[in-house]
Amino acid sequence: MLALGALDLAEAHGVELALVGDAERLASLVGTRSHRVVGAARAITHDDSVRDALRGKIDSSMRRAITLVAAGEADAVVSAGNTGALMALSRHLLPMLPGIDRPAIVKPFVGRGGARCWVLDLGANLSCTAEQLHRFGRMGAAVAEAAGGVTAPRVGLLNVGVEHSKGPREVRAAAERMAADEGLSFAGFVEANELFDGKVDVVVCDGFAGNVALKATEGAAAMARHLLGTELGGARLVRLLLAGRLRRLAAAYNPQAYNGATFVGLQGVVVKSHGGADRVGFREAVGQAVRDLESDLVGKIVSRLAGQSTEREGKE
Amino acid sequence: MLALGALDLAEAHGVELALVGDAERLASLVGTRSHRVVGAARAITHDDSVRDALRGKIDSSMRRAITLVAAGEADAVVSAGNTGALMALSRHLLPMLPGIDRPAIVKPFVGRGGARCWVLDLGANLSCTAEQLHRFGRMGAAVAEAAGGVTAPRVGLLNVGVEHSKGPREVRAAAERMAADEGLSFAGFVEANELFDGKVDVVVCDGFAGNVALKATEGAAAMARHLLGTELGGARLVRLLLAGRLRRLAAAYNPQAYNGATFVGLQGVVVKSHGGADRVGFREAVGQAVRDLESDLVGKIVSRLAGQSTEREGKE
Repeated sequence: MLALGALDLAEAHGVELALVGDAERLASLVGTRSHRVVGAARAITHDDSVRDALRGKIDSSMRRAITLVAAGEADAVVSAGNTGALMALSRHLLPMLPGIDRPAIVKPFVGRGGARCWVLDLGANLSCTAEQLHRFGRMGAAVAEAAGGVTAPRVGLLNVGVEHSKGPREVRAAAERMAADEGLSFAGFVEANELFDGKVDVVVCDGFAGNVALKATEGAAAMARHLLGTELGGARLVRLLLAGRLRRLAAAYNPQAYNGATFVGLQGVVVKSHGGADRVGFREAVGQAVRDLESDLVGKIVSRLAGQSTEREGKE
Repeated sequence: MLALGALDLAEAHGVELALVGDAERLASLVGTRSHRVVGAARAITHDDSVRDALRGKIDSSMRRAITLVAAGEADAVVSAGNTGALMALSRHLLPMLPGIDRPAIVKPFVGRGGARCWVLDLGANLSCTAEQLHRFGRMGAAVAEAAGGVTAPRVGLLNVGVEHSKGPREVRAAAERMAADEGLSFAGFVEANELFDGKVDVVVCDGFAGNVALKATEGAAAMARHLLGTELGGARLVRLLLAGRLRRLAAAYNPQAYNGATFVGLQGVVVKSHGGADRVGFREAVGQAVRDLESDLVGKIVSRLAGQSTEREGKE
C-alpha cells in the first residue's frame, strides 16, 4: 500500500526509487518499471525498542534504507515506521551537522488562508536547553525558506504567555539569545493558538510541547470532521449542494494531505510519514522528501547554522 | 458587561452576588436587586506583575474579592482578570489544602458526543515533580466526580507516546506512583489527540504542556469556525437550510460555551473566566463556581488527597 504511494509519486515526478523490504512482494509491485528493489529480511515494528533497532535487528529494512543514503546510493529516505527507531538509526548512520546533538522533527501546521507555520521540535528532544532552542530557530528559518520560499522567516518561541517575564527559565534564556541573533527575525513569544493565524512562519519549542501541540491539533481536527459528518449527515439535499465545499473543508483539516515530517540536523534527508498513512498520505511524504532535496534544504540549514557559529565566535 | 453576565446567572439560579469594583457603576447595574456592591479603587490589569498584585495595588478589586472568600463573607470568587495575579493572590489570601504547594488550573475539554475530559494543570505549574503530578491525578478525579458525576474517573497521564518506556523522567515516575495508587483508576499514558475521544475522564500534565494543549485546541477550533464561515459563506440557500445545525456545530467548538477554569488545591472556590469572555461566557464562568459549590468540590478534593496521604503513610 505505502509502496504504491511511492510509485505514484515517482511516476508523476520522474523520481527513481529504491524500495527496501520484502524483495519478492516489492518486485511484483514494481513490475517492468525501472526502480531498484533492495531485500531486507526483517522489519522494525512499533513495539521494538531503540536498542532492538540499533543492535538487535541489524538486517532491518529501516537500517538498509538509511545505509543507502549514508553510502550515497540514495538521496533521501522516507519511512512510516517507528519514530524512535528511525531517529536513532539516522543519528547512528548519518553524519550530524555541526553543533547538533540530536535532530529535530519539523512539520508545517496549516492555518487560515493556507498559511503554513513550521513547528520544531515535534518529539525528538523532550527537554531542550536555550542553546538547542536557538539552533532550532536557525534550522526552522532554513526550512521555511527552503520549503516555503519565505524570505526572512519570522521565528516565534512557544510559551504560555507573551510577556517577557513569562515561562520556564530555558525558554526565557532562549528568547534572549534569539533576540540578540541578527541572523534571525525573532518575533518573540507566541502561544499555541497563534500557530494558525499566520503571525509567524516558524515556531520553536521542546519536543514534548511540540508533540502535544501537534496531537491536540490533530485531535481537534478529527473532532471537527466527526461533528461535520454527524451533524450534516441527515441532510442529504444539503450534502449534495455542499459536496465540493465539504471536500475542500475536509482536506484542510486532514493530516494525510500534509503528511511528512522532516528530521533536521542530519547530513541527509530523512522524512517520517505518519504511521497511519494511506497510499495518498505516503505519496505526500515522498513528495516532501523530493521537495526537501530540490530546495537544497540541508545546504540551507548548514549555512544558517554556520552563520550562528560565526556570529557567536565574533561576539566572544 | 461581565457584571451583567453575573446578574443573569444570579437571576436564573437564585444566587446572591457581591460585585467588587467601581461602586457607582456597579450600583447602577444592580439597581433595586438585592446584591452587595463592594467598592474598590483600583483594578489589576493584564500588564501588572505578580509583585504589583501582591504588594503594589493593595486596594485592588481582585484582592477585595478574594478577601471576601477568606473572611467567609462569600463562598466563591470569579474573575476574568490577570491569571498570574489571581493565582498569586489566591495562594496568599486563602489556605492551601494539605500537601499542595501551588494550586492547579483545571477545565474540561469537550470531545465527541459531548464527552468531557478534565485536564490539569493548564498553566499554574510550569514544571512538575512526579509527586505533584500524582496529586493532580487525585484532585482531577475529585473534579470529574464533583463536576461530572463520574464514578471512579479514569485518569490518564499526558505523554508523547503510550509505551511505558516513553517520555520525560518525571512523567514516567508519576506513572509508577499513579499505577501503585489503589485510590485511583489509572489509565496509563495518553497522547493529546486522545483528549477528545472519551477514553479517559481526567488528564494530568504540567502547566506548560496543558496550556499548549488548551491553546492549540482553541486555535484549531477557531480555524474550523473560520473555514466553515468562509467556505459556506457564499451559499445562502444552504446557510438557510443548515442554520440550526451550524449553530449547534459552532457551539460545540466555542470556548465561551464552556468558559470557567477552576483553581484546585485551595480552601475555597476560585474560578478564572477567559479574559476575552462576553456576557454569556462570564455567566457560564459564574455558573461553574455555583456548580463547584453545590457539588462540594473542595470537600471531595480534601477527602481524595487525604486518601493519598493515608495510603502513603501506610506503605512507609
